[in-house]
Amino acid sequence: MKVQVRRAPILVEGFRFAGAACGLKESGKRDVALIVSDVPATAVGVFTTNRVKAAPVHIGIERVRAGRVQAVVVNSGNANAFTGRQGLAAARSMTALVAKQLGIAARLVVPSSTGRIGVQLPLARAQRGIRDALRTLSPAGFHDALEGIMTTDAFAKFGVERLPIDGRSVTIAVLAKGAGMIAPNMATLLVYVLTDAAVSRTALRRALRAALPASFNAIVVDGDMSTNDTVLLLANGCAGNRTLQPASRDYPAFAAAIARVLRATARMIVKDGEGATKLVDIVVRGAKTAREATRVADAIARSPLCKTAFFGGDPYAGRLVCAAGYSGARFDPDRLDVWLDDVAIVRRGVEVVRAVERRASRIAAQPEYTVTLDLHAGTASAMRMASDLTVDYVRFNSDYRT
Amino acid sequence: MKVQVRRAPILVEGFRFAGAACGLKESGKRDVALIVSDVPATAVGVFTTNRVKAAPVHIGIERVRAGRVQAVVVNSGNANAFTGRQGLAAARSMTALVAKQLGIAARLVVPSSTGRIGVQLPLARAQRGIRDALRTLSPAGFHDALEGIMTTDAFAKFGVERLPIDGRSVTIAVLAKGAGMIAPNMATLLVYVLTDAAVSRTALRRALRAALPASFNAIVVDGDMSTNDTVLLLANGCAGNRTLQPASRDYPAFAAAIARVLRATARMIVKDGEGATKLVDIVVRGAKTAREATRVADAIARSPLCKTAFFGGDPYAGRLVCAAGYSGARFDPDRLDVWLDDVAIVRRGVEVVRAVERRASRIAAQPEYTVTLDLHAGTASAMRMASDLTVDYVRFNSDYRT
Repeated sequence: MKVQVRRAPILVEGFRFAGAACGLKESGKRDVALIVSDVPATAVGVFTTNRVKAAPVHIGIERVRAGRVQAVVVNSGNANAFTGRQGLAAARSMTALVAKQLGIAARLVVPSSTGRIGVQLPLARAQRGIRDALRTLSPAGFHDALEGIMTTDAFAKFGVERLPIDGRSVTIAVLAKGAGMIAPNMATLLVYVLTDAAVSRTALRRALRAALPASFNAIVVDGDMSTNDTVLLLANGCAGNRTLQPASRDYPAFAAAIARVLRATARMIVKDGEGATKLVDIVVRGAKTAREATRVADAIARSPLCKTAFFGGDPYAGRLVCAAGYSGARFDPDRLDVWLDDVAIVRRGVEVVRAVERRASRIAAQPEYTVTLDLHAGTASAMRMASDLTVDYVRFNSDYRT
Repeated sequence: MKVQVRRAPILVEGFRFAGAACGLKESGKRDVALIVSDVPATAVGVFTTNRVKAAPVHIGIERVRAGRVQAVVVNSGNANAFTGRQGLAAARSMTALVAKQLGIAARLVVPSSTGRIGVQLPLARAQRGIRDALRTLSPAGFHDALEGIMTTDAFAKFGVERLPIDGRSVTIAVLAKGAGMIAPNMATLLVYVLTDAAVSRTALRRALRAALPASFNAIVVDGDMSTNDTVLLLANGCAGNRTLQPASRDYPAFAAAIARVLRATARMIVKDGEGATKLVDIVVRGAKTAREATRVADAIARSPLCKTAFFGGDPYAGRLVCAAGYSGARFDPDRLDVWLDDVAIVRRGVEVVRAVERRASRIAAQPEYTVTLDLHAGTASAMRMASDLTVDYVRFNSDYRT
């Protein structure tokens, strides 16, 4: 007997969802997803800065720029990247089908794809999936859509926040996929943030930008993105509040909720890093500039030697300090302090871990902990969330063909 | 019965060598090395640009700047890095002991250390080792010294070139250690290039600078160096030729020999990459600028996804193209060509590997092959030598404590 776990449906006023399986994934799992708003939603987005962009990303950038989006059509199992004109035509055709069936303009439909790259999308199959999905669109279809966007994800990533705005109850819900090593990350990140609040485009953009440094930009470094990465934020106004502006009384609470739910979702993606066993927060403070703080945090978060040390539970600071040293940040090594959680392992440039080795080792053995470096060179800071580099990561990625 | 493999001694006129074991390595193998010239040699060097420099590096930079070096004293098993004032005093004391025993000025002695970082050097032990080594100094001690500088190396790296200069037979010999992943590389690189030719400092510096881009700078990227990396070039003039100048007739042959022996040694270090099973040459051409060509080659050589694909023998271009895309180099993805050796797998931006899959797979299964990208955006080029990222790399580095 198959036990079915019932998940409470996630409802966002005026949004309907669907997922369908059409054989793009060999597993037979859902590989098409639809997100449809009853009315055109105010839209802002962030897309990969990779020079090689997947076909749907080219179209998405153009359509989100216009500011209004009513539907998102996603396929998994094929990234439609590196597929030339044929790929562009296929992505356009997916949106045209959705638009026609919904009776809306194609320019209101944004496409996304994720999966294998360099292979033409089997369009007829995707169209069949889209038709199936359209038939099952429902306010309760959130988890079906979520399954439709997943690829190598070990678990679904989603989040919900509810808050009062202007006396109305407003919902913010996130559907996300992505399961890669932190950076360089080529595992596609797809993130759809949906709210029934009425929000001006300026306020929406500001809230998204404010939320990124401590969420998706802390795990996916600009310039290290995949060909398909997309973060889309849609506000359809169906909650009935007066349109939220940056100066509105409720704006800070709204922006905080966006930041919270994005950060939580980003952490889920790090935790689902391929083969990952650890989530290490890298905090750098006392840098001369924010850019230099980021460089130090990035150098550590990317270093194979630091990441294998996280995997091994090594409480020593040598690799961390070495990465900080080659990061390009200006600091005096003789003033550097390093902590694991609240235990100092380097004090004024001298490794002192031996005195606290048992405590430090216990921290380094945890599934989550924080490494803090204080450069004592200024007041700027940065953070990164890093997964470890494991034997399973290598096994997985040397078996998986791109 | 222990079988002793006899190696022909490598002789360089006017140089003596020694190695000794003093217990810095737990294995009991040689962990001290001496290189001594009969007369002060003309010296040039390149040192780590890491902001955190080991104690001996600080001293070495200062002494090589003066232009004359007569002896090098090396210990392995302890990097004397991240050891503060005590470390500096220990490094100075090593050179003082050598200088005193040889009856030369301490400023003519350069120290090097490699091994575990963040641990104070057991000085008394090192001094005992140095005294032992001094007693066995011999023109035939090359391989003993080589053993004394090794750490995690699976095999010794060395090379010899002989050529006529000004009617005299001249020798160039290299002793090197290093066994790390390419970049970021924190496994210390120590390279000593010795020649009995008489060479002006300008000619020596020029030959070293010309040789680096296709040798050690192709595997150790500036800014990704360890705290201890050192490349030292000594010319003692004992071959009796008239001092070689950049304008000399024999200079090009000398510079070519330096380039050849450094390149061969650098390849040995990549082949001995921790856990490495492959050496992949990454060639990028058709870039707008040399810097952009380098960025593309670096992005590929560092990408964990590309490196695990090398390990897995994946002939597909997706990860290569994606890394090129986020490298920051300007190019039109629709003009990109990619080859594995002489087999095109991407033509004008379209993946064509399926048509040649068997041949491409055979190449990708080889222990050595070349990946070439032509960006068709300009005339600049760059190359990198990359090892693969393997299960054994992660095992080794998660077990090894820094």
